[in-house]
Amino acid sequence: MANFKGHALPGSFFLLFGLWWSVKYPLRQCWRRGQPRGRSRLPQFFNRIDLVEGALKIFFAFVGIMAEQFVPDGPHGHLYNQEAKSWVKLMNWQHSTMYLFYGISGIADVLSMTSLPIPPGLDRLALSLALFVEGFLFYFHVHNRPPLDVHVHSLLLVAVFGGSISTLLEVFLRDNPVLELLRSSLAILQGTWFYQIGFVLFPLNGVQWDLTLHDNMMFVTMCFCWHYAVTLLIIGLNYSLVWFIIRRCSGRQINDMEIGLRKQPPSDRSSQKALLQDSEEE
Amino acid sequence: MANFKGHALPGSFFLLFGLWWSVKYPLRQCWRRGQPRGRSRLPQFFNRIDLVEGALKIFFAFVGIMAEQFVPDGPHGHLYNQEAKSWVKLMNWQHSTMYLFYGISGIADVLSMTSLPIPPGLDRLALSLALFVEGFLFYFHVHNRPPLDVHVHSLLLVAVFGGSISTLLEVFLRDNPVLELLRSSLAILQGTWFYQIGFVLFPLNGVQWDLTLHDNMMFVTMCFCWHYAVTLLIIGLNYSLVWFIIRRCSGRQINDMEIGLRKQPPSDRSSQKALLQDSEEE
Amino acid sequence: MANFKGHALPGSFFLLFGLWWSVKYPLRQCWRRGQPRGRSRLPQFFNRIDLVEGALKIFFAFVGIMAEQFVPDGPHGHLYNQEAKSWVKLMNWQHSTMYLFYGISGIADVLSMTSLPIPPGLDRLALSLALFVEGFLFYFHVHNRPPLDVHVHSLLLVAVFGGSISTLLEVFLRDNPVLELLRSSLAILQGTWFYQIGFVLFPLNGVQWDLTLHDNMMFVTMCFCWHYAVTLLIIGLNYSLVWFIIRRCSGRQINDMEIGLRKQPPSDRSSQKALLQDSEEE
Amino acid sequence: MANFKGHALPGSFFLLFGLWWSVKYPLRQCWRRGQPRGRSRLPQFFNRIDLVEGALKIFFAFVGIMAEQFVPDGPHGHLYNQEAKSWVKLMNWQHSTMYLFYGISGIADVLSMTSLPIPPGLDRLALSLALFVEGFLFYFHVHNRPPLDVHVHSLLLVAVFGGSISTLLEVFLRDNPVLELLRSSLAILQGTWFYQIGFVLFPLNGVQWDLTLHDNMMFVTMCFCWHYAVTLLIIGLNYSLVWFIIRRCSGRQINDMEIGLRKQPPSDRSSQKALLQDSEEE
Repeated sequence: MANFKGHALPGSFFLLFGLWWSVKYPLRQCWRRGQPRGRSRLPQFFNRIDLVEGALKIFFAFVGIMAEQFVPDGPHGHLYNQEAKSWVKLMNWQHSTMYLFYGISGIADVLSMTSLPIPPGLDRLALSLALFVEGFLFYFHVHNRPPLDVHVHSLLLVAVFGGSISTLLEVFLRDNPVLELLRSSLAILQGTWFYQIGFVLFPLNGVQWDLTLHDNMMFVTMCFCWHYAVTLLIIGLNYSLVWFIIRRCSGRQINDMEIGLRKQPPSDRSSQKALLQDSEEE
Repeated sequence: MANFKGHALPGSFFLLFGLWWSVKYPLRQCWRRGQPRGRSRLPQFFNRIDLVEGALKIFFAFVGIMAEQFVPDGPHGHLYNQEAKSWVKLMNWQHSTMYLFYGISGIADVLSMTSLPIPPGLDRLALSLALFVEGFLFYFHVHNRPPLDVHVHSLLLVAVFGGSISTLLEVFLRDNPVLELLRSSLAILQGTWFYQIGFVLFPLNGVQWDLTLHDNMMFVTMCFCWHYAVTLLIIGLNYSLVWFIIRRCSGRQINDMEIGLRKQPPSDRSSQKALLQDSEEE
Repeated sequence: MANFKGHALPGSFFLLFGLWWSVKYPLRQCWRRGQPRGRSRLPQFFNRIDLVEGALKIFFAFVGIMAEQFVPDGPHGHLYNQEAKSWVKLMNWQHSTMYLFYGISGIADVLSMTSLPIPPGLDRLALSLALFVEGFLFYFHVHNRPPLDVHVHSLLLVAVFGGSISTLLEVFLRDNPVLELLRSSLAILQGTWFYQIGFVLFPLNGVQWDLTLHDNMMFVTMCFCWHYAVTLLIIGLNYSLVWFIIRRCSGRQINDMEIGLRKQPPSDRSSQKALLQDSEEE
Repeated sequence: MANFKGHALPGSFFLLFGLWWSVKYPLRQCWRRGQPRGRSRLPQFFNRIDLVEGALKIFFAFVGIMAEQFVPDGPHGHLYNQEAKSWVKLMNWQHSTMYLFYGISGIADVLSMTSLPIPPGLDRLALSLALFVEGFLFYFHVHNRPPLDVHVHSLLLVAVFGGSISTLLEVFLRDNPVLELLRSSLAILQGTWFYQIGFVLFPLNGVQWDLTLHDNMMFVTMCFCWHYAVTLLIIGLNYSLVWFIIRRCSGRQINDMEIGLRKQPPSDRSSQKALLQDSEEE
């Protein structure tokens, strides 16, 4: 699917999940902060959401695999053409493989939410693995292409492997608010960058980019940073919005707790933060 | 031993150990989970198993070294030919060196099970080292070979170094269930991939692969991911099977404990998992 | 701004911040050590200082962006020249982007000092990110330049990425005195090295360096190490100075505490250190 | 000093320190294990030893710098020859720089042993830095040399950077017995490998090696692994020896404690080990 749509489809998936995470995690963090200290429980509501998220991942992965296989110029499930002695549409098969691992990550998510004895952190490992496989396949994906084409895909790899490492850290540092925001931001970045790749390689206005010009590569590198700056802005806005709404709804409760905290023997600011973090990490 | 058997032999070793680990670790985890909280002890049984495992490693390493040295076209212990002024069968010597470090790992395993004051984590460090040495030697192993040959061995390195890093983490995060499953899966992957290398370079049906065709490389990259997907399936099946059998055997006990847990002041699901993990990690 | 001033400007910023940190962090560490055990509080004074630091970062970033855009030969806000079909002054745009992320880091600093519920560690993540973006853009910045030019900028990357990784660790190991000193030293190193790049590429005495001579590259590599040795000396002097002054001011108090410590059941020296560290880390 | 002695000198330093560490750390570990639980103190003896070690490092670094500068064909403190417009003996200057950072590491060791408020872990950071600088300078040291020359120095870098990373971990995981043994082993490896480089590049029997033959490179890679296998053997022997002697001297005491441990409610073997580790790490 080497066209604009072929990049917009995965881009939309990542954008959707990134935006959703940038709302979900602040919501969870604010909820916990609003609770009195001690092992506060998250409402059942949050578990159901995670379950739906996992199910959606499986569904999207399934849609992605089907789309890659059964588009008109797809391989339709054929891998090797005995007559022509050649592989059939390997590009589509590679994309299917990427979706497959996101499906596995979805299955791990769903299983983690059941009462089965799944080791904690397995869902994050599966997601980290899905991102790694995506980056791994992309890495060997772009040989023999024009320099700018290679470069925009290499930049994508920064977001993909960055997300993979950040998610791997979450296996060991679960519920770390900074890592959760980092993962959300890298998912949004990946989403918007897929769109950008589409715009660069298949321009909507029809004016082709010069795929060998060094200046274009320099611009694209810088543009990647701008995407991330905008992503950080979105994350910040969503965080503020969630915090403002939560504060409105459960208003007085938070104020009380904050006053309570201020009444404690005053201590170093960072230790106060550490306290808050404790109550978040439970 | 540049033939199919030369790849099937180490492949079988890794496959065997990987499959065994994928049964042993779930067994240990389920056993601990089934115990009442507090520092439950593993039955002596598990220590004996680890001892046997270490002894088997030493034995296999010994067999491997002997095989590499004394096959008909092996170096028979000769390293340098003074007359021809050349090294004798360096490939076999390199393989012997790899086996040697697995032997050292086996010795570390056995020593860790005795009552000697071995620093905890040394067995994992020795295994990590053995994997590193394997990867290190393979890395300088494949110069001047056809592209596909280099590529299938490079993919092997992903499994080898991945296993080495994951095992190194276990030095510091001992008994982490996720890392144990990761190590098991990477061992199985290495095993099946050794077989795949054999099939690609020495096809059983006699039809040689084109070792320079780019499409073959793309397929092989993807195939590596499929191997890992199947590996994950095997790990999952073994985990379920072990859990199901343990549940059958010690049935009521687990149920009781789970009800016990559910009666506790209900808390966030992830904290409940953390509890379980605590009891696992002791 | 490919001239001496263009390298002296960022160099001065980094030097200023590095020197300031090399005073601030020893001050905080000594203050805490001087307090009786238990969660001692840092005076409000330190929070105000951090606030001013964040505000200064935003101001400097703003100055930097404006300078890059509106110097006589700058892009004046124009990105693409429709007539010439070419990008306008991409170098200046890249530098503006770097400053932008330092501005974002400043905003994160300021927000962390307010009473808003910012996740702890976000300020360090933002700084780490700003350093990463700087290194990332520099990495693609130096294609098609003479070898020595490439080499001095590559050496800069060691300081930049080193600082980025060290600051990233601080997200998880906040208030670690060793990491704080490491960050200070890498900032000073970056500052002095920017000056050195200026001296090498635009020598003040007008005698151009031979940008292709291998010996020059060897000298420059070694010179980089000397810069760091001097940096360590500065850090050490500042640390001693701060410690000496604090000791003078709050003299008796520290002595008392140290005697108190010595009266404790004597234990291993490293454990005593660990105690001190605890009281630092709170 | 491109001759055999020039490689034997640093090799001897590293070998000496590696062997010494492989005795010192087991000694400390066994001593602690022999003490009753709780924060046992190391005898003043160990601090004095560390002080002497630091002083020796400073002395050796000083000797190294002097030797590099004032050997007959050294630079004698001259850096730039104004007349010839060229740098003077950069190789010797680079080696002096390496020694300088080991001197700084020695100073950090000595300061850490005084009663000054040095942040704990600074001595390990300084050592890690010295190793990093050594590797960093070697990395840019070997351009334009024959392949085998480059290769033996690259293998050295594995030991150097491995040691640097392992020592960096010790900043955060101080007194970890596994990391201490790893550092000792990598120091011995570096020492013996320096000798090996000397033997390969300046053979004592006068028969030059073919510096371009691929087989030689394969042998050397394998030989590096053998060096490490021998290193592990030495480490193991020293550990056993120390343990055996300590057991002899303070015999009964250890036995008592072990019986004490066995009388505790029996728990998982690994948890028992963790206990022991706790008492080691204090």
